[in-house]
Amino acid sequence: MGDATTPTSPQQPKPIGRRPGSVDTRGHIATIARRHFGERGYDNATLRAIAADADVDPALITHYFGTKRQLFAEVVEPPVDPDTIITALAEVPPDELGERLAELVVGLLDDPTYGATFTALLRTAANNPDIAVMLGDRIKHSILLPLAEQLDTDRPQLRATLTATQTLGLVVAHQIIQLDTLTHIDRRELIALVAPTLQRYLTGPL
Amino acid sequence: MGDATTPTSPQQPKPIGRRPGSVDTRGHIATIARRHFGERGYDNATLRAIAADADVDPALITHYFGTKRQLFAEVVEPPVDPDTIITALAEVPPDELGERLAELVVGLLDDPTYGATFTALLRTAANNPDIAVMLGDRIKHSILLPLAEQLDTDRPQLRATLTATQTLGLVVAHQIIQLDTLTHIDRRELIALVAPTLQRYLTGPL
Repeated sequence: MGDATTPTSPQQPKPIGRRPGSVDTRGHIATIARRHFGERGYDNATLRAIAADADVDPALITHYFGTKRQLFAEVVEPPVDPDTIITALAEVPPDELGERLAELVVGLLDDPTYGATFTALLRTAANNPDIAVMLGDRIKHSILLPLAEQLDTDRPQLRATLTATQTLGLVVAHQIIQLDTLTHIDRRELIALVAPTLQRYLTGPL
Repeated sequence: MGDATTPTSPQQPKPIGRRPGSVDTRGHIATIARRHFGERGYDNATLRAIAADADVDPALITHYFGTKRQLFAEVVEPPVDPDTIITALAEVPPDELGERLAELVVGLLDDPTYGATFTALLRTAANNPDIAVMLGDRIKHSILLPLAEQLDTDRPQLRATLTATQTLGLVVAHQIIQLDTLTHIDRRELIALVAPTLQRYLTGPL
């Protein structure tokens, strides 16, 4: 960490030297913190390391966000990018929603970056009950409710929640306990097997 | 911890004094260890505390089981008692298997003891990737394969695995991230919603 105070442009992802408290320093800290929590999990991330990586004084993080827990609460993201899911499903005919969502979820199973992020997030949730509940709330508001809004059916929120149970279980069984039937099965086949479940939850008779 | 060396009968659950290395001391240690791992999770359980609770010298645990990891590997149990599941499903007509299994799983959701055990186990799995894989293997051999053996269908192992993804997801969504739609929904209704998914995985056309 240098001590240079040369002004940095917003385009520069990793500025040299301690940043002054400016309009986008807060966002810069949030970006770094999000990466640290994602890669290391909540328990192994430290304000000191985040501060060093962001080239700011740890006190500035406290000033902007408060405690580590409050920082986490503000920057944590659901295990999938909500926009990706919502945008991908927006143009899909209702009777193909199950298959399209199954494709999205099964596609994530073989993505090592996603796997690491999901594992870190689940570790954090399992170790910190209050954070787990907060995470559930975040998933509800950023994924399930927007998904529910797209459904032209009865009981959209219940449908989105049931959908979450199947997709979550698929990822946990594949990613965490690594059931070998799942790790070995052909991806097209897995999509075809799970799609009818998702389709029924999303648009079928309940 | 006393030092009495009075012989203890196998019926006595918590003997007084250090136990000599006898035929059932190993089983006694395993029982205590299983409880410690279940209640505290792998990371918070210690050989010292298990030894104290079992009234044996820590060296005796090492002698019988090796490392803490090896002890865990030997005594860990799947998140549900396999016999309970297998026995409960043994007498059920094939076309009612989905509903009966849904009843069993939903019944566990409101059991605080089960909730604590499941959370501790998931915490252990999330924090220790190799243990997670071992746990998956245990689940496969003690629940999924016996369940598959009961199914008079094609591809029984795949069916049991798909069933595991839905039940696991239901428990994680309810127990860990506590989606409020799941915590509030009427239990009979939740059973009716999930049963068709399990029925299709167990006996339906894939």
